[in-house]
Amino acid sequence: MTAPHTDATRHHDPALRGFASDNYSGAHPEVLAALALANGGHQSAYGADAYTAHLGEIMRGHFGPRAEVYPVFNGTGANVVGLQALTDRWGAVVCTAHAHIHTDECGAPERVGGLKLLPVEAPGAKLTPELVAREAFGFDDEHRATPQVVSLTQSTELGTVYTPEEIAAVAEFAHARGMAVHLDGARLANAAAALDLPLSAFTTDVGVDVLSFGGTKNGLLFGEAVVVLAPERVRAMLHVRKLSMQLPSKTRFVAAQLEALLAGDLWLRGARHANAMARRLADGAAGVDGVEISHPVQANAVFARLPREVSLRLMKRYPFYFWNEADGEVRWMCSFDTTEEDVDGFLATLRAETGG
Amino acid sequence: MTAPHTDATRHHDPALRGFASDNYSGAHPEVLAALALANGGHQSAYGADAYTAHLGEIMRGHFGPRAEVYPVFNGTGANVVGLQALTDRWGAVVCTAHAHIHTDECGAPERVGGLKLLPVEAPGAKLTPELVAREAFGFDDEHRATPQVVSLTQSTELGTVYTPEEIAAVAEFAHARGMAVHLDGARLANAAAALDLPLSAFTTDVGVDVLSFGGTKNGLLFGEAVVVLAPERVRAMLHVRKLSMQLPSKTRFVAAQLEALLAGDLWLRGARHANAMARRLADGAAGVDGVEISHPVQANAVFARLPREVSLRLMKRYPFYFWNEADGEVRWMCSFDTTEEDVDGFLATLRAETGG
Amino acid sequence: MTAPHTDATRHHDPALRGFASDNYSGAHPEVLAALALANGGHQSAYGADAYTAHLGEIMRGHFGPRAEVYPVFNGTGANVVGLQALTDRWGAVVCTAHAHIHTDECGAPERVGGLKLLPVEAPGAKLTPELVAREAFGFDDEHRATPQVVSLTQSTELGTVYTPEEIAAVAEFAHARGMAVHLDGARLANAAAALDLPLSAFTTDVGVDVLSFGGTKNGLLFGEAVVVLAPERVRAMLHVRKLSMQLPSKTRFVAAQLEALLAGDLWLRGARHANAMARRLADGAAGVDGVEISHPVQANAVFARLPREVSLRLMKRYPFYFWNEADGEVRWMCSFDTTEEDVDGFLATLRAETGG
Amino acid sequence: MTAPHTDATRHHDPALRGFASDNYSGAHPEVLAALALANGGHQSAYGADAYTAHLGEIMRGHFGPRAEVYPVFNGTGANVVGLQALTDRWGAVVCTAHAHIHTDECGAPERVGGLKLLPVEAPGAKLTPELVAREAFGFDDEHRATPQVVSLTQSTELGTVYTPEEIAAVAEFAHARGMAVHLDGARLANAAAALDLPLSAFTTDVGVDVLSFGGTKNGLLFGEAVVVLAPERVRAMLHVRKLSMQLPSKTRFVAAQLEALLAGDLWLRGARHANAMARRLADGAAGVDGVEISHPVQANAVFARLPREVSLRLMKRYPFYFWNEADGEVRWMCSFDTTEEDVDGFLATLRAETGG
Repeated sequence: MTAPHTDATRHHDPALRGFASDNYSGAHPEVLAALALANGGHQSAYGADAYTAHLGEIMRGHFGPRAEVYPVFNGTGANVVGLQALTDRWGAVVCTAHAHIHTDECGAPERVGGLKLLPVEAPGAKLTPELVAREAFGFDDEHRATPQVVSLTQSTELGTVYTPEEIAAVAEFAHARGMAVHLDGARLANAAAALDLPLSAFTTDVGVDVLSFGGTKNGLLFGEAVVVLAPERVRAMLHVRKLSMQLPSKTRFVAAQLEALLAGDLWLRGARHANAMARRLADGAAGVDGVEISHPVQANAVFARLPREVSLRLMKRYPFYFWNEADGEVRWMCSFDTTEEDVDGFLATLRAETGG
Repeated sequence: MTAPHTDATRHHDPALRGFASDNYSGAHPEVLAALALANGGHQSAYGADAYTAHLGEIMRGHFGPRAEVYPVFNGTGANVVGLQALTDRWGAVVCTAHAHIHTDECGAPERVGGLKLLPVEAPGAKLTPELVAREAFGFDDEHRATPQVVSLTQSTELGTVYTPEEIAAVAEFAHARGMAVHLDGARLANAAAALDLPLSAFTTDVGVDVLSFGGTKNGLLFGEAVVVLAPERVRAMLHVRKLSMQLPSKTRFVAAQLEALLAGDLWLRGARHANAMARRLADGAAGVDGVEISHPVQANAVFARLPREVSLRLMKRYPFYFWNEADGEVRWMCSFDTTEEDVDGFLATLRAETGG
Repeated sequence: MTAPHTDATRHHDPALRGFASDNYSGAHPEVLAALALANGGHQSAYGADAYTAHLGEIMRGHFGPRAEVYPVFNGTGANVVGLQALTDRWGAVVCTAHAHIHTDECGAPERVGGLKLLPVEAPGAKLTPELVAREAFGFDDEHRATPQVVSLTQSTELGTVYTPEEIAAVAEFAHARGMAVHLDGARLANAAAALDLPLSAFTTDVGVDVLSFGGTKNGLLFGEAVVVLAPERVRAMLHVRKLSMQLPSKTRFVAAQLEALLAGDLWLRGARHANAMARRLADGAAGVDGVEISHPVQANAVFARLPREVSLRLMKRYPFYFWNEADGEVRWMCSFDTTEEDVDGFLATLRAETGG
Repeated sequence: MTAPHTDATRHHDPALRGFASDNYSGAHPEVLAALALANGGHQSAYGADAYTAHLGEIMRGHFGPRAEVYPVFNGTGANVVGLQALTDRWGAVVCTAHAHIHTDECGAPERVGGLKLLPVEAPGAKLTPELVAREAFGFDDEHRATPQVVSLTQSTELGTVYTPEEIAAVAEFAHARGMAVHLDGARLANAAAALDLPLSAFTTDVGVDVLSFGGTKNGLLFGEAVVVLAPERVRAMLHVRKLSMQLPSKTRFVAAQLEALLAGDLWLRGARHANAMARRLADGAAGVDGVEISHPVQANAVFARLPREVSLRLMKRYPFYFWNEADGEVRWMCSFDTTEEDVDGFLATLRAETGG
């Protein structure tokens, strides 16, 4: 094969960054380097490769010796695979009304998995045993979809973080009723950084049964993993992943990326940095007249209320989203590649726009 | 951010290749280079990036000015998204009994899309109007799932290739009955190379309405595209892709890979090479005593029958699969990275093992 | 054929009645008589019979000249058929958190129809435009299941009744946003009796597009009908009913029962009587010490709070259900066959048990 | 309540009968009598009534002491409930290409249950171990829907009947591979009559695990039952029935009808009579010039080929269906209420029309 002479070209300015989402970012250079290493030659497809095997070892280092890892494509896929694995045809999933599975997956849990969701209003997007109890009943009632899973998100859709004790309390409540605990960890690394705890401390050790481990938002090109912490609660994971169309053929390339993230501390460096940038942004914005921080800033998301017109002007240079446009609430996300200059530039613009 | 010092390591020997599947191969170096170019900075997620926009232009160059492109993760996903887009809740899909959607997707069409498949036995895995007619009836009968789509595979699961005239005949038959034409093009490039025709000549120009364009088996890390050639036949493609869990967040990285493949002739070079290697392999094997080529070799697959024990010994050095173990039939796939040395080494081993 | 000499025997005491549910009752004698009339000879199956044709005429008398009627087996079936007919694969349904489709159908909407429900907390189980607005947004957002239907229940799961104006307000709000209006009318007759209005006055005339007309709870053996009031909003109803397993083969026997109900005023007599019995029961119970009526009694349901032990003793003679056992809330349902003696006997026992 | 004065009227001529389907017939008078007996008073809904309990006893008399019975509405419902109960999310069902579940249920197995069907061409619509073997492989292959059930129909869609030995052979083959055996018994009574054997002899005793027991086609208004013969193979039947929308609220009225059929020999009398009428019809038609009986007549169906125009003229007085219009093949069904006069009148007309 001749030397590369790619026909692809660059279509964007790599110096521009905003606060729209942590998935607006690209990939860690180390992740690209890992892909190059994993490339070449032939490797068994569909998960029977050396990289996936190796990733299992790495994950067991993080999550304990019983952990099983199933690389998948994306977060919605990870959630729906995990939830199907934990439920029967008649099962239901208790979650918050803010849960990504309820609000942002276009009904994939229902349509792909036939899952019934039982959303409850939850302050700060965090479930408690009391909140779960509102829907955790009727376990033998054929008229009611059987509550079989509680699904938490860590860090939450509102940028808050469960303590290990909070998760343990929900898990204990759930397990006592025969329910399993699922954790949507699209931003699990940010939670670990916020808590300054190892990943197992607020997952394996406190009763999480299956989790979606998020890679894309922490510096991969793409790629997540369903991590099964309680193998006795699931069956036929390989089949469930395949029928959900979440089995990558060249699995080595998902595994190699996750390995780049998790073999050392790249995952933690990226998450700590993103959290620190959110802290810097929130602290700066809190002092600006007319800006109100609307949720506790515990991970890499900042929620704020400010005049809608100010937001519209700011978005031109620094893209971000309204969370609730009518209300003037916005979300500013920081990612592994957000720089102090990005934050300070944004704050300066914010101050200029508000006349502050 | 400091310089990359990846923790990932190489776990495989990049010099080893076999004939198990074209998805055992890695990625074109040009594809990795394109990823590096597309990296850095922020780009809108979920398809609103510059690379996806650019890919649309490139695809319209190949498939005509009406073509719309929707990057997705994998082939099963592309198929199920495309088929859902072409059907109502009550629709059915006529396909061959060899169709990947029937045999190798763990029921994803049925489970994810609620699709009813109507498989027909088809010699060489190729449909004809006569074969489609066996299931294309009962269009107003509520007891019967309404046949709304004919799904073809090009090149087929048996390594054969439809001529443009053959596809046109099926499409004409289908359209005359109000049915749409779907084409599973996981190996579309190999068909183009075999036919020595532009991609449009056996798709857009002969009545294909929606196709799955395969990238993974032709040198991507991952990534396919649903290409809509007849936009009037589909609705809400964005929603269908999302609810099927096939919307990549960092879409730029699927688009950039596909661009690397399709902006120039990388797609064609890879496919031509793979086909040539299959030809070389088939020609060599055909002369070996006890080996029978069992299907016409028209693309990059070689099907053969040989003694089972010979296959078992061969597989140790050159992995490949039984197609029908009881029957002794095997499949040898060539890919963009198969070398003449690979083929010749394999043939030498084959001859040695058969005493030929 | 010899004269009937049935081997069936009576296994219950037809003099015993309670307040558990209006589906604990049997069938109107007139309904049985209609079945005998419709019996004998051959009639085309699957809806092509004279009784179903005739029922169409009768329904158009009640609901206007555009009404189309599709007999089905049961209420869950009627709801899920109607909702599928009003939605695309990507659609969602706004309903109350009390809605039968959310709480009592074991997830059939999600599992059978792939429907996404968007439940909102609603006082008195009644939606308003303000409540619908909480979930009626994101119509072009592929990440969100598209709100395509508002589903109301009349009379509601809490025994309350929407006025025509209230339904009109919700329908106007929904239609202005491209959403359709579905009405679960398992107890539609009770609402008509309560409002003292013709059926069309709070359905066809105020913007309901598709309704589930309930027969079982108003004196049929079984049988409901999906009534399409706005045919332009649905497609392929026959197929949707069939694929939902809700097409009776001997449709004449559903149609004949509904005809018995609706050709004259049997539906109204039964509903008025049931409502009157609920009124009598509520008025009597309201005066008993320790008993609190917990929802307005507008149709045939009475909700009350009383000491749990009193309920447990009462249930032995007059079966009924806890609505919320922890809270001591119970539901007492009256039906077409509830007698004044039943109510008075129950009240006497209630007084005796409470020491009143 | 006043005396019945029904508003229903008779809309058909009860003297007219044809040969279109056994579900064109009405109900046995004894079945109506049983409904009257079961009427009145209150009975627990949703299966907790005395009639359903009693039916269990009766069914255990027919099918053995382990049999569990779940009344449902219709045949498609019975099949899809039973098949779901026997499969996991990743399961597949081997059946014939003639199977009702494949050809006449509008995809309900796929859409409602997410089931994957693996149809095989089968002469006489009867499976054998050899035919099952064509699709019974890949039990550990995640790419393939796992074959978990073999579904037979008895008597078959072509009017043929399996011997007990034939079913035993398929069941043995299936069980040896971990697969379960489902039997679609919409016309089970006709098979029993044909074989002159008790129901258990070709179900429970030869390895059938779950069956759909057909009532509608043997003289009920409506009503079938899922009969579980191997309870260890299913779970949560009550939930599966409910989520499939097949749980009648007034279950007593399905159970009472089935009791009328099965407590004595009404089921057998009706089936024997229908079979005898088919025999009479086939014997008469076989002697008519230009008429060819196209399948063995073993139950209550007669398949024949005759000139298309003759059929079209015959259908005017005696409705029946083309089975394959292009081919001139027709199906004549006899039912419990078919009379000798009906058959003889039909044969006379046939002879007259063919000039025989």
